[in-house]
Amino acid sequence: MMRTAVIGLGLIGGSMVKDLRKAGITSSIVGVDANEEHGKAAVALGIVDSVAPLEKALSNAELVIIAIPVNAIQKILPTILDLISPTTIVIDGGSTKAQICKAVESHPKRNQFVAAHPIAGTENSGPTAAFNGLFKNKMNIICEPGKSSERALTIAGEVFNALGMNVTFMEAEEHDKHVAYVSHLSHVSSFLLGQTVLDIEGDEKNIFTLAGSGFASTVRLAKSSPEMWAPIFQQNARHLKKALAEYISHLQKFQQYLIDDEVDKLYDTMKQANEIKRVLQGIELKDQISKTEPIVK
Amino acid sequence: MMRTAVIGLGLIGGSMVKDLRKAGITSSIVGVDANEEHGKAAVALGIVDSVAPLEKALSNAELVIIAIPVNAIQKILPTILDLISPTTIVIDGGSTKAQICKAVESHPKRNQFVAAHPIAGTENSGPTAAFNGLFKNKMNIICEPGKSSERALTIAGEVFNALGMNVTFMEAEEHDKHVAYVSHLSHVSSFLLGQTVLDIEGDEKNIFTLAGSGFASTVRLAKSSPEMWAPIFQQNARHLKKALAEYISHLQKFQQYLIDDEVDKLYDTMKQANEIKRVLQGIELKDQISKTEPIVK
Repeated sequence: MMRTAVIGLGLIGGSMVKDLRKAGITSSIVGVDANEEHGKAAVALGIVDSVAPLEKALSNAELVIIAIPVNAIQKILPTILDLISPTTIVIDGGSTKAQICKAVESHPKRNQFVAAHPIAGTENSGPTAAFNGLFKNKMNIICEPGKSSERALTIAGEVFNALGMNVTFMEAEEHDKHVAYVSHLSHVSSFLLGQTVLDIEGDEKNIFTLAGSGFASTVRLAKSSPEMWAPIFQQNARHLKKALAEYISHLQKFQQYLIDDEVDKLYDTMKQANEIKRVLQGIELKDQISKTEPIVK
Repeated sequence: MMRTAVIGLGLIGGSMVKDLRKAGITSSIVGVDANEEHGKAAVALGIVDSVAPLEKALSNAELVIIAIPVNAIQKILPTILDLISPTTIVIDGGSTKAQICKAVESHPKRNQFVAAHPIAGTENSGPTAAFNGLFKNKMNIICEPGKSSERALTIAGEVFNALGMNVTFMEAEEHDKHVAYVSHLSHVSSFLLGQTVLDIEGDEKNIFTLAGSGFASTVRLAKSSPEMWAPIFQQNARHLKKALAEYISHLQKFQQYLIDDEVDKLYDTMKQANEIKRVLQGIELKDQISKTEPIVK
């Protein structure tokens, strides 16, 4: 049982401590959030026992979880490491890892920090979006494990195990590169699809009339929080620019096939894209398991 | 009760006659499909009573439903009108309407035809994908209703009512223009996202490890049938090219913000895209109703 501080009381931080409390990992939970309303809601919802300013929350914590936008993590992480006791363990949940790791690479307490990316979420945000089981059977990527102490990795392992997550390890740059293609690009694609359709279809009634479940699925991520995503895109700009350039180039090639009436090439492109079925079957399988199995400590 | 012929035994045609039989609209159902395996499967699944060649199937039909790729509809529709009796009604389900309507605009039996687009589907295809309730509470767009007889519109109305659909009317060109943005563009965006990620991530293990439910949702339509979609894109190329050019231009603008490190503009773009929430709430509401209410005739 650990006295826990959670910085950021949104979907990720809130869902995490809900599960940790249920699993008996935490003895007490104090929350920190710049948004006073979120703090009040988190207390009212029983997500945290109390809220406090950062310094006070850290003074007594054995475990610190950071779940705020990645630019804020990068900025505040050195201060958090300054303030914690020599036995406190800090885990972040940022979707980019290179700049966050760089911000503390030569910090004397670097080995008390575990750089993690839990691959889970919904398009909703804030403490009211938090729920038990969000992380069940999802992947958690730990970056630069060699820079964390064995004790830090062991405690992080217990935390992720309590959340029901599968852990894998990656270098921070590798992580950021792959996640640009597999996660960040799909968010950009969805945000811009939403914006394009809203821009063109002045009369929203047409969207409502003609949109089916396919449109809803493709544009779902356009509901995501700009507060969270703008810093992710900025921090991962180098890899995301490359991913986006590739995507635009594929779209332009498709556009040229349309212009040239090359229906066979349209067909071949889609046939290639169909190969994604194999990957999606795997993801659906993960989701299914996650829905049917109870949380195991 | 009508003797019914259904041309095309896939997801749309199969699901349609399953509901029509259940609602007591059909007395017998004969199927036509170029794919012999699909014909056999449809009989085995009880979707149709028998299969027959086109001419034989039409010889006795009072109601004809056409649910094949749009280029095949355009090609075969004049022949079907040639072959039917003076009282038979023909309804198609093509996702584009201008070229199909044009193919029969001066046909003497044009008024026995109702040009329809049921906005429903899944990313799966073939007779095994057919299911009861696919169309419940979904929209059906009838194009050029002035060119169909009152009797044809009445019968089509009964059919769509039995499917639980809401009907609205549009000119064919208007329909094709709006549907390019709201449906066809999201399919292109998803197909090309799938292809881009597969192209870049040589090792599919990375996709599997890093992909969450967000990626799965955005790329879901990339599983759709190229046989069905290549002809749709070709027929709607004029409008789709414009929609795709707009989408590419929005993506390029976003790319420039990334290059220039204009994080405020990234933020503003996403904030605008968030407006899609209102539209999605409406679509989810439709879906919810569709899942909780029994089929009413």
